[in-house]
Amino acid sequence: MPTFESDKLIRFHHCDPAGIIFYPQYFILFNELVEDWFTQGLNVSVVEQVINQRVGIPMGRVECDFLLPSRIGDILRFALQVVRIGRSSMTLRIECRAGDELRVKAQLTVVFASLTTMRSVPISADLRQRIEQFLE
Amino acid sequence: MPTFESDKLIRFHHCDPAGIIFYPQYFILFNELVEDWFTQGLNVSVVEQVINQRVGIPMGRVECDFLLPSRIGDILRFALQVVRIGRSSMTLRIECRAGDELRVKAQLTVVFASLTTMRSVPISADLRQRIEQFLE
Amino acid sequence: MPTFESDKLIRFHHCDPAGIIFYPQYFILFNELVEDWFTQGLNVSVVEQVINQRVGIPMGRVECDFLLPSRIGDILRFALQVVRIGRSSMTLRIECRAGDELRVKAQLTVVFASLTTMRSVPISADLRQRIEQFLE
Amino acid sequence: MPTFESDKLIRFHHCDPAGIIFYPQYFILFNELVEDWFTQGLNVSVVEQVINQRVGIPMGRVECDFLLPSRIGDILRFALQVVRIGRSSMTLRIECRAGDELRVKAQLTVVFASLTTMRSVPISADLRQRIEQFLE
Repeated sequence: MPTFESDKLIRFHHCDPAGIIFYPQYFILFNELVEDWFTQGLNVSVVEQVINQRVGIPMGRVECDFLLPSRIGDILRFALQVVRIGRSSMTLRIECRAGDELRVKAQLTVVFASLTTMRSVPISADLRQRIEQFLE
Repeated sequence: MPTFESDKLIRFHHCDPAGIIFYPQYFILFNELVEDWFTQGLNVSVVEQVINQRVGIPMGRVECDFLLPSRIGDILRFALQVVRIGRSSMTLRIECRAGDELRVKAQLTVVFASLTTMRSVPISADLRQRIEQFLE
Repeated sequence: MPTFESDKLIRFHHCDPAGIIFYPQYFILFNELVEDWFTQGLNVSVVEQVINQRVGIPMGRVECDFLLPSRIGDILRFALQVVRIGRSSMTLRIECRAGDELRVKAQLTVVFASLTTMRSVPISADLRQRIEQFLE
Repeated sequence: MPTFESDKLIRFHHCDPAGIIFYPQYFILFNELVEDWFTQGLNVSVVEQVINQRVGIPMGRVECDFLLPSRIGDILRFALQVVRIGRSSMTLRIECRAGDELRVKAQLTVVFASLTTMRSVPISADLRQRIEQFLE
């Protein structure tokens, strides 16, 4: 099964006074990764989905292990797979590596929701089919 | 056992195009909460600890459930308790409520580490005693 | 003429690997200051204005001098005055001090705009009157 | 004279409840741009400079005009030129365009400073020579 991968450069603005990534920045990078996956992996326009259809994917649950610190100048490979796809939610597994070294692993459950009502909406058949290609 | 509590106002800059808190901002607010707890609850100077002793508390593991959305102008009560205290790490439980409504609950494991070497360091006897007052 | 003042604690998450505030964080603190001013100084609800009336105040022009660095644990006093009030924009002067020491001074021109159309909207007579109380 | 250019995608996490870039995010993007310029334009390692030599470039003065709003999905071309190079500071001009449309223009004065003492340090002859290639 395919894995979606995207490389991210760790920048000065991600890092804290300890000189390592301030951990909330990982969640911002995960958000970038999911955007990259929608655009490049699923061939779905984020603008079309978020702005025109007013459907977002707010976070439902996060589990994340920070195994080793990362520093400015590191290039991390973020890998994403789909663990589960439900009626209106899905669970993603993300792993970040520097070379072979596993730095961070996470499991994120996002909910498809109307940005107008904040109620969950079913994943369309077309989108489900695209997502299933990344199912473990 | 005492619980440490701190109220946080949800501001424009916490919110995303959906008009709700962008979830990584919760982790920044958790960081503020832990700082407030050190300063006001444990009577420990963050400056003394981070700058002079060069000891930080990088995140080891996060579990977090986002149960209901929060919006600009909401005042959330963040409550913190200690679930476990080990040799050089501790696990915190955080709950965020708007009135009686539970919005977010999280469990965070932080590691006491030298900001110079990034190796874990034991929690001092004095600090342990203060932290134990917030142990469930 | 009155000046609106608000104290802000510099936190770990504001600081960069140099151990000082990462300068874009000042602009986030300015945004907090303006929110505090609307709520406490002008007695205007930010929620009412932004969410119900859909009027925001996007930034038009910034001039800002960073005179001296600030560090974690510093408490800065932010002082705001109105330099100019036009039909649909106003210019604010902000100064940040640690004790007597001037750390940052800025001049910000914000535009009242519809969040739906992003076109400028005139400042209402009632709001203008409140703002004029802080005019230099 | 050469201009350094870098394209930046406007992402969900840059945008506020108005659906446009929250303006402090521009300064984070400027910081990315300057990093890109050091790495790709000047052939200077940011890690070598910031971590090993402990020399940073804190912001001294910002002037910035936000002419037109930008939204999620926009790709902005950031162009950088050097306006002035002094003993230990330089002034940069940055323009952001979407196609031909000028969205933001800024002038930034940064200071070369020791991250240990926060005192200014002279720009080395080698670095000066590289920077002068981008002087207007």
